[in-house]
Amino acid sequence: MKAFALALALSLTAGLPVAAQTDPDWRAADPEDLLLIDVEDGTIVIELADWIAPNHADRMRQAARDGFFDGQSFYRVIDGFVAQGGRGEEADSIELPQYPALTGEFTVPADSVTFTSMIDQDLYAPTVGHVRGMPAAMNDEGSEVWPIHCPGTVAMARNNDPDTGDVEFYIVIGQGPRHLDRIMSVFGRVIDGMEHVQALQRGNPAVNSGVIADPDARDTILSMRVAADLPADEQPHYEILRTDSQAFAEAKAARRNRTHDFFFETPPPVIEACHMPAPVRQVEAAQ
Amino acid sequence: MKAFALALALSLTAGLPVAAQTDPDWRAADPEDLLLIDVEDGTIVIELADWIAPNHADRMRQAARDGFFDGQSFYRVIDGFVAQGGRGEEADSIELPQYPALTGEFTVPADSVTFTSMIDQDLYAPTVGHVRGMPAAMNDEGSEVWPIHCPGTVAMARNNDPDTGDVEFYIVIGQGPRHLDRIMSVFGRVIDGMEHVQALQRGNPAVNSGVIADPDARDTILSMRVAADLPADEQPHYEILRTDSQAFAEAKAARRNRTHDFFFETPPPVIEACHMPAPVRQVEAAQ
Repeated sequence: MKAFALALALSLTAGLPVAAQTDPDWRAADPEDLLLIDVEDGTIVIELADWIAPNHADRMRQAARDGFFDGQSFYRVIDGFVAQGGRGEEADSIELPQYPALTGEFTVPADSVTFTSMIDQDLYAPTVGHVRGMPAAMNDEGSEVWPIHCPGTVAMARNNDPDTGDVEFYIVIGQGPRHLDRIMSVFGRVIDGMEHVQALQRGNPAVNSGVIADPDARDTILSMRVAADLPADEQPHYEILRTDSQAFAEAKAARRNRTHDFFFETPPPVIEACHMPAPVRQVEAAQ
Repeated sequence: MKAFALALALSLTAGLPVAAQTDPDWRAADPEDLLLIDVEDGTIVIELADWIAPNHADRMRQAARDGFFDGQSFYRVIDGFVAQGGRGEEADSIELPQYPALTGEFTVPADSVTFTSMIDQDLYAPTVGHVRGMPAAMNDEGSEVWPIHCPGTVAMARNNDPDTGDVEFYIVIGQGPRHLDRIMSVFGRVIDGMEHVQALQRGNPAVNSGVIADPDARDTILSMRVAADLPADEQPHYEILRTDSQAFAEAKAARRNRTHDFFFETPPPVIEACHMPAPVRQVEAAQ
């Protein structure tokens, strides 16, 4: 078998559970920050990002706790772009909790976060890197930081008005749609189960913006839960490599400078903004 | 329902069949260039690219006609990276046709093709654009052109030696792994059914490079056919927007300069190399 690209050392997908360790390069995800979305194909795990969108993260926690999403669906799924979930339009008349529109949370002051630059060129921003495991960018002045749209990025949908998001959310499933950076409220990223997002039933992008007309053809959101609300022995545990750690700096260096014999010609010593997801591992419960 | 990003006008995914037209901006795909891969979830359609890899394209036609792939599988599928199909290693001992290794087909002289530049900055190449519907790049001197790795790109796997590809192939299913440009023999792109590639069973990238250990857990290649070999009334027909047409130039301009009210702040006027797939449409048989 051809073993091409063995040098791919990092992946968005979590591996099998390993014992929780005390390695300071890894941080444990807070169960209050983990959204678990069950669909027929499996469980999608999102880490919420209070650093950028505390009100949107809280909205998702609240709606999950209200049971709002249970039985709803991924009703607009465009291959190579996004999977959008929530209530869907025809359900507007159904008896469901109503949530007020949220003010957009698009950028934060740079001095409020730890931004670690990749120091590579980027089409859309002066500097790209990471904040707390999420791909992010910084402006010219070094004063503002925002998460960027890469595969696995989770954000709130909205109408034309920037401050109209409520509970309809989307997950990026294709080449990072960077033109949405800074104008959508990104509130998390998928840290496990991305293959289940990719398996969702697609709509036809040429018809009604990709909305799947037949509700029965849509993938149902069987449930959405905050991990902290599960019995202790049912809670999954994840660790994320700290993106301001030396270990992550070394991972970036290895990716930028590929030395495996497979590369009979050395690729340019660069990393594309969406091509360096922070490693995630599922672990047994900490002691 | 939040209608975000309505301005997404183009998609990799083909729409429903429309009547074949005589619009000179669209070219009909040659049925001799269409590989149809049936998996449980549906049919994956690949357009072969003789302009860059005639020997690899011929190998795929030959192996498909030999029935080589029928009953084989996608045995190495890494979410966010590639789906690799063919025989797999444990099948080396099975009675199957053997094919000699191919000399790599990585780049072509620029004067042998029509390269249409997007004239946007790129991390990996001096210039990016398209050749015959495929995303491509050109070197500094303007003398060489090569296809680039974007979602849907199809190429031959190989061992460390550049000239060791035979029939094991892969389809890109994640953010374009551009570090593989110019060192892999790209021979086509998926023009329909990408959602079926995305639905394939994944392997664990941390174990044996993502190979799915249990053959029964893999998605089977039910059949691989060249469209030209099907009865005339069973052949699908596709048209691809010519990437050297004025219509495609206008589509790029529209994508670069988004004017929809949704964009309350205008994104940077750029297009990322993998973010401009040539539009494809399925059509009824031509007259």
